[in-house]
Amino acid sequence: MHVVVNAAMSADGKLSSRRREQIAISGDADFDRVDRLRADSDAVVVGVGTVLADDPHLTVKDENLRDERRTNGKPANPARVVVDSSARTPSSAEVLDDAATTYVCVSDAAPVEQRAALAEHADLITAGEERVDLLRAFAALQEQGIERVMVEGGGELIFSLFEAGLVDDLSVFVGPKVIGGRDAPTLADGDGFVENFPELELGEVERLDGGVLLTWRVAD
Amino acid sequence: MHVVVNAAMSADGKLSSRRREQIAISGDADFDRVDRLRADSDAVVVGVGTVLADDPHLTVKDENLRDERRTNGKPANPARVVVDSSARTPSSAEVLDDAATTYVCVSDAAPVEQRAALAEHADLITAGEERVDLLRAFAALQEQGIERVMVEGGGELIFSLFEAGLVDDLSVFVGPKVIGGRDAPTLADGDGFVENFPELELGEVERLDGGVLLTWRVAD
Ligand SMILES: NC(=O)c1ccc[n+]([C@@H]2O[C@H](COP(=O)([O-])OP(=O)(O)OC[C@H]3O[C@@H](n4cnc5c(N)ncnc54)[C@H](OP(=O)(O)O)[C@@H]3O)[C@@H](O)[C@H]2O)c1
Ligand SMILES: NC(=O)c1ccc[n+]([C@@H]2O[C@H](COP(=O)([O-])OP(=O)(O)OC[C@H]3O[C@@H](n4cnc5c(N)ncnc54)[C@H](OP(=O)(O)O)[C@@H]3O)[C@@H](O)[C@H]2O)c1
Repeated sequence: MHVVVNAAMSADGKLSSRRREQIAISGDADFDRVDRLRADSDAVVVGVGTVLADDPHLTVKDENLRDERRTNGKPANPARVVVDSSARTPSSAEVLDDAATTYVCVSDAAPVEQRAALAEHADLITAGEERVDLLRAFAALQEQGIERVMVEGGGELIFSLFEAGLVDDLSVFVGPKVIGGRDAPTLADGDGFVENFPELELGEVERLDGGVLLTWRVAD
Repeated sequence: MHVVVNAAMSADGKLSSRRREQIAISGDADFDRVDRLRADSDAVVVGVGTVLADDPHLTVKDENLRDERRTNGKPANPARVVVDSSARTPSSAEVLDDAATTYVCVSDAAPVEQRAALAEHADLITAGEERVDLLRAFAALQEQGIERVMVEGGGELIFSLFEAGLVDDLSVFVGPKVIGGRDAPTLADGDGFVENFPELELGEVERLDGGVLLTWRVAD
């Protein structure tokens, strides 16, 4: 399995403002790049925080890319995965429509009624007692044939993936804006590391949409 | 007056971990660049949070650069400025030694005894009722002949400077590490913006010490 985390952050490392509304950090060139990355993936993963804040659809926008996938014998869109310990994803969420297969990863603690409601729209993966156990959840995804995984945020999920040692690559668009805010979501939130910080190796550096795209590889 | 903010952040936008200990984010090439920037400045400014966390000296390390300054009729080191509403800077702080002139900017709320103690080691500038009024404090610095200002952090002060419209340039070294943490200090903390985000223009992009130095200009 190969896991790439992709996100757009402000020049000061924020994914959004403290209001957690979606903010345009990048532009058309970056959208096209992200669309291509989605089309190249078997699954696109987000945390439930992102579903609740942004209600993203997580499908491939460019019809040519969808056609290309079909030509290669794949479904038009990659699978969508929501990491959601207590099954809080609303039934009306865009990720639950029938544009693609959707997996919702829940924990043992998810209430039965909410699981049942979600099971009508998605395939459930249960892993972890209180919180989703990401190693087990990703192993279950791999058993479903998912090899190329793209993670689109947010900061809580991204931190946990680094903590679990699951991240191979990190693509960050750094945009020409200051958002600020000690409570605004950042690229990696969670409890944070205090030692043994994951080390990165810098790959490509590309100017784009008034900002810069940094491609990092996680060092072993 | 020209104000440049300089800082080193992790790939995820952190200045330090949630423990607020100093973390090596950059390396020798960036230290040399920062030393040159200090030598080119009339004053180096930090918030009291940085003094309490890191106890920095804020002097020019390279003897040749200090000689160069003297040759140009300047003091060996630029002035040091601490933004410190309630005069919490300890008398033993490195910035209070006699290696350079030091200004401590306090507010009307600073206790008299602590002001008196600080006044033995530094020139006090009083501006603002509860918190230091940065516009007034920086105007007072300008009256002292300070034209080229370098701000070295931390995130609380940097946010307030953006809020006050005082920042002209932002140099950020983005380092090859993930720090994470929703409570870790970021490049711009404070309350954060929720609209009218300061817009930046990307200048130089330079690979350095395994990371990348981004030079932004604040758009008017
Ligand atoms: N700029 C960008 O590229 C971008 C991309 C995505 C999101 N965003 C922004 O990011 C914000 C949302 O990010 P977020 O950090 O709040 O939420 P998130 O990372 O999307 O989701 C976090 C939630 O996932 C659930 N979760 C389950 N198991 C987990 C585990 N092992 N580790 C971590 N989380 C786990 C937790 O909720 P439960 O405990 O209920 O399971 C947790 O609160 C929004 O403001 C959105 O606009 C920006
Ligand atoms: N990586 C780097 O380049 C770098 C550089 C510097 C610092 N750091 C790290 O950053 C952390 C410290 O940053 P910080 O954000 O906590 O502290 P900070 O920005 O250095 O100082 C903030 C303090 O300044 C005082 N202040 C007075 N007037 C203010 C105003 N108008 N606006 C904002 N602040 C005002 C406030 O304390 P009062 O209310 O008491 O006045 C405030 O708490 C440490 O962990 C340090 O290691 C890293």
